[in-house]
Amino acid sequence: MSLYTNRQWFYVKRPEGRVGAEHYELRETPMDEELAINEVLVEQRFISVDPYMRIQQAERNTYDLPHPLGIVQRAATVGQVLQSNSSQFKPGDWVLGYSGWQTLAKCHISELQKLDPELAPVSTALGVLGMPGRTAWFGLMEAGRPRAGDTLLVSGAAGAVGSLVAQFGKKAGCKVIGIAGGPAKCEYLINRLKLDGAVDYRAFSTTAALAQELERVTGGWDVYFDNVGGWITDAVMPLLKLRARAVICGAIAQYDGGLDQPDLGPRFLQHMLFKRATIQGILARDFTHRMEELRAAVGPWVKSGEVFLDETIVEGFDQLPEALNSLFEGANTGKLLVKV
Amino acid sequence: MSLYTNRQWFYVKRPEGRVGAEHYELRETPMDEELAINEVLVEQRFISVDPYMRIQQAERNTYDLPHPLGIVQRAATVGQVLQSNSSQFKPGDWVLGYSGWQTLAKCHISELQKLDPELAPVSTALGVLGMPGRTAWFGLMEAGRPRAGDTLLVSGAAGAVGSLVAQFGKKAGCKVIGIAGGPAKCEYLINRLKLDGAVDYRAFSTTAALAQELERVTGGWDVYFDNVGGWITDAVMPLLKLRARAVICGAIAQYDGGLDQPDLGPRFLQHMLFKRATIQGILARDFTHRMEELRAAVGPWVKSGEVFLDETIVEGFDQLPEALNSLFEGANTGKLLVKV
Repeated sequence: MSLYTNRQWFYVKRPEGRVGAEHYELRETPMDEELAINEVLVEQRFISVDPYMRIQQAERNTYDLPHPLGIVQRAATVGQVLQSNSSQFKPGDWVLGYSGWQTLAKCHISELQKLDPELAPVSTALGVLGMPGRTAWFGLMEAGRPRAGDTLLVSGAAGAVGSLVAQFGKKAGCKVIGIAGGPAKCEYLINRLKLDGAVDYRAFSTTAALAQELERVTGGWDVYFDNVGGWITDAVMPLLKLRARAVICGAIAQYDGGLDQPDLGPRFLQHMLFKRATIQGILARDFTHRMEELRAAVGPWVKSGEVFLDETIVEGFDQLPEALNSLFEGANTGKLLVKV
Repeated sequence: MSLYTNRQWFYVKRPEGRVGAEHYELRETPMDEELAINEVLVEQRFISVDPYMRIQQAERNTYDLPHPLGIVQRAATVGQVLQSNSSQFKPGDWVLGYSGWQTLAKCHISELQKLDPELAPVSTALGVLGMPGRTAWFGLMEAGRPRAGDTLLVSGAAGAVGSLVAQFGKKAGCKVIGIAGGPAKCEYLINRLKLDGAVDYRAFSTTAALAQELERVTGGWDVYFDNVGGWITDAVMPLLKLRARAVICGAIAQYDGGLDQPDLGPRFLQHMLFKRATIQGILARDFTHRMEELRAAVGPWVKSGEVFLDETIVEGFDQLPEALNSLFEGANTGKLLVKV
């Protein structure tokens, strides 16, 4: 007896370049209401779309095995309990889960985290108080080790992680320069995020020209928080200052193909030597056990509005593959979410 | 009244590629015996020849301003006091200094460090108990953070710093694999240094082929101590294991021109992310104030013969420029010294 229809985006074809709708299939599956003990049925409200999803679509192992073909695209989700077979959840409760691109999911309660909409808007569990916030906070504070007066350079600065790193850097007393694509995003960095400078990489056609502008604007960097990799990072690396720290958080510019095919850039390791600098790669998962610290440090700033993560909300479950694709076109400012 | 003739190698022309005799001029300068208070006249016995000298000949700033043209080539030296105007030094005393490529030098005693030939052979002050030893010890222990059972991969493993890093790695309980050029050096790594494996990079003509062999021999690395950079490091980087640490100590493969001209290699920073790895550049000078620690940790091993730094000794002051050049041909095993 199926009362419900679950709509699901199956990941069916590995992208070679840009990911899009052709790599997914939308299926409708009947779903009954039968729940095991401590299981609940969740109806998703917000589904997350994140750059890391493209990494997991590389052919070879990255930080995980490749995302299997033929299953629902994995993703973090915020939804509401529709039916419950647990004393700990009741219909209407908001929950954070990792249910993927589907409108409904039966979940064991151990897979869910209850959200209090009075404390913060529920979508922040996918943003500033979730994975992107954790990545930005611990990546910057622990690997970047910012000090007051440092120059912090952030690539992908108008994105989810980048815009948080930039704000955390201001809180730490840094001079913060953001790199983003296009005048609108740069205007956003200056006027909304109140950064000390913004560089529009799209205004430059060569690494050397971009490097020259970055040098002019920053005077060299103490901390570089990298979300993009590729030719932008090529331009940034030689501008490091003594004992500089680079945090490698993403390489979004290389996701369209560079993960499976080697791409070339200038060798730069000698600069690490000359300046006794450090590069560290970080992933959100290394800090999952420290969410309490994140909430303690950042929660009050979110409540007061001092730190925020703007959302780009795409309406409609059907839009998920296109929304993922749009991340690599730089369409979003802040956190990209799909509203079911 | 000149009693002495000082022979000096002046650095007169900036090399674009390989450095050699054509970039130096040998001059003979008369020298009197007049000494200011607390000055001594030192006759050099051993003059050091180190890869870093080529870095300082780059046209642009590296970790220092470029070595000025028209002055005596700077270098560390071990010599004996010939005359003294200080109560703290007497003729015959052995001293470590930084007097450069010249047979004689008048030095203020604050520039000198007295050596006790009973404690260790005086040339060790230019080797295992000097700059190369300090670089190897602190670079490995502090930036590499080796743990028992780790796989340590060392490039330039038959060189001064490399052969010490390899031995310190064995002391730390690591499985140690060395990379060196040619079968003789690889035999040295296995039979003299007792390493667990050796890879002759000259046996491979492509990065991919070298990478395949390195993967076979190492199974991936936890610590990479890099003295060479260039295409060897290109092959090494993607073979990192979870939370690996790369120590960038030198880039000798790039010194022939790569420091002034950008050279291309495959981008690899995404691997740092996937594996949450760290790269750190180190220089001996950052640990100069910690020589006591070095002597305490390594001195006993040197005395017992458990750790050693073999020397390649070139006879004759006139050979200095050629000796420097030979470093980049990989002619030396262990520490290269010129005996005056």
